[in-house]
Amino acid sequence: MSLVVVGSVALDSVETPFGKAEEALGGSATYFSTAASYFTDVKLVAVVGKDFPERHIRFLKRMGIDIRGLQKADGRTFRWKGKYDFDLNQAHTLDTQLNVFASFRPVLPEEYREAEYVFLANIDPELQLEVLGQIRKPRLVACDTMNFWIERKSRKLKETLKYVDILTINEAEARELSGDSNLVKAARRILSFGPRAIIVKRGEYGALMFSDSSVFAAPAYPIESVFDPTGAGDSFAGGFMGHLARVKSINDRSIRQAIIFGSVMASFDVEDFSLNRMKRLTSRAIEGRFREFKKLTHFEDLKS
Amino acid sequence: MSLVVVGSVALDSVETPFGKAEEALGGSATYFSTAASYFTDVKLVAVVGKDFPERHIRFLKRMGIDIRGLQKADGRTFRWKGKYDFDLNQAHTLDTQLNVFASFRPVLPEEYREAEYVFLANIDPELQLEVLGQIRKPRLVACDTMNFWIERKSRKLKETLKYVDILTINEAEARELSGDSNLVKAARRILSFGPRAIIVKRGEYGALMFSDSSVFAAPAYPIESVFDPTGAGDSFAGGFMGHLARVKSINDRSIRQAIIFGSVMASFDVEDFSLNRMKRLTSRAIEGRFREFKKLTHFEDLKS
Repeated sequence: MSLVVVGSVALDSVETPFGKAEEALGGSATYFSTAASYFTDVKLVAVVGKDFPERHIRFLKRMGIDIRGLQKADGRTFRWKGKYDFDLNQAHTLDTQLNVFASFRPVLPEEYREAEYVFLANIDPELQLEVLGQIRKPRLVACDTMNFWIERKSRKLKETLKYVDILTINEAEARELSGDSNLVKAARRILSFGPRAIIVKRGEYGALMFSDSSVFAAPAYPIESVFDPTGAGDSFAGGFMGHLARVKSINDRSIRQAIIFGSVMASFDVEDFSLNRMKRLTSRAIEGRFREFKKLTHFEDLKS
Repeated sequence: MSLVVVGSVALDSVETPFGKAEEALGGSATYFSTAASYFTDVKLVAVVGKDFPERHIRFLKRMGIDIRGLQKADGRTFRWKGKYDFDLNQAHTLDTQLNVFASFRPVLPEEYREAEYVFLANIDPELQLEVLGQIRKPRLVACDTMNFWIERKSRKLKETLKYVDILTINEAEARELSGDSNLVKAARRILSFGPRAIIVKRGEYGALMFSDSSVFAAPAYPIESVFDPTGAGDSFAGGFMGHLARVKSINDRSIRQAIIFGSVMASFDVEDFSLNRMKRLTSRAIEGRFREFKKLTHFEDLKS
């Protein structure tokens, strides 16, 4: 039942109108696995440099994350520097230093290869394919991507999508990948590339899931103090995959609940810098916010 | 139980990437009352010029709308010319000719003054106040406004809001009116101006309702062919107020259902130019789409 994630572990420097963080723990695999750790066992695949602080390693272990797949390479850890203005939906990248991530080749420890649930975070689609080649019998594969790969590695990305069950993608990127400005048509086109479902992430507007037989709309939780949106998409994916791996059933019902758990984790993530909010959650707090989502969206059906 | 609306009746020329309409029937009161006519009796207050086509009068009558409050003034009817690009959330006004609307003073026929439900569409807040002064004992007053009045008549607008139960407003305008970029804080600030509830309209992202004790998020219906968003906000308000006037009960439960009916009417409105889609609806179609909203948003709660 274990869940494998491959992605980045990074040191982020982030500035928002509400403050800033310098060289804080970040990266897609970090956010994903921290969020998912509240639901199930997570095995992380990523790379860091020799400069990666030992305290971050201790943190990941403390969250119960399996880091046997975390390589330590000669060189410096991946660094990202970004800024958000009052429109917190839009990150402005100030600097990207790939460092050891530039030559990252994911190698899965033997114990990871039986994993049934796999999340391919936003990395080069060639690496995503390499990871899939190392998993013996995945039951559910989800992946994320971004405009960078859509523009530069479109063919490889589409090849990867043939092996993917669920794609999570930002709204603008869904339009770009499909070439259609209408989201319903965009989703249908992307489904034709292979995935059985696509989850369109819309930041503060929530998420929309499309499959052949179902459409589901989830709002974002209205938050009074959004401090730092970094990692919201990966925290969403962590809650989403974590729930599915936990309940061991994949159907419209569990996928809808998983989308709400994903939205719950994203809503916690943005309440503080880095993983500061997410690292001190409880099942009770997570379930409490799930129930808030129910209240937020509930309306009585018509009498039949 | 009747419902009065005061607003504009106009001739709209609209261009979208999917086609155009010339001098088509439009105006906030027109969209509102057409949508509301499927739910309850509607009494319209507005003004047109001598050039207003007789066929539009016949159309309004055919929809069962009471037009005794529709003044016919010397001069030309209000005209609006607008354009939408692929981002259909944003209208670009090309030309506005107020014509007879410039000197409009709403005078309610005697039969209108007992109305219990009142919608003040987006007009000068001074006129909104004048209308309220003519209604004896309103049970529920809702109103709309826009950046033009927020910027030019802020004081009058805030005076009007003291008498308003529910404000419907676009997202950007909620931020502008409140002076707060965070929507939760913006809503709370606007509630302090007087309304018991505020409904923030977010175009293709749906609507958010805030009251002192409740928050409700409704998605927009994902539509494959959005032809013309003109009138979506007023169609929303028409479905919303129409439902409340029909069920004669105003509480969290009926307000949530009313927001869905509003979203249903807005979703029909955008499927064609002018009122072309909305004018040929049935209760069955409206209830069918209401049920689609239920499917679109439903997820199982946690076992307690």
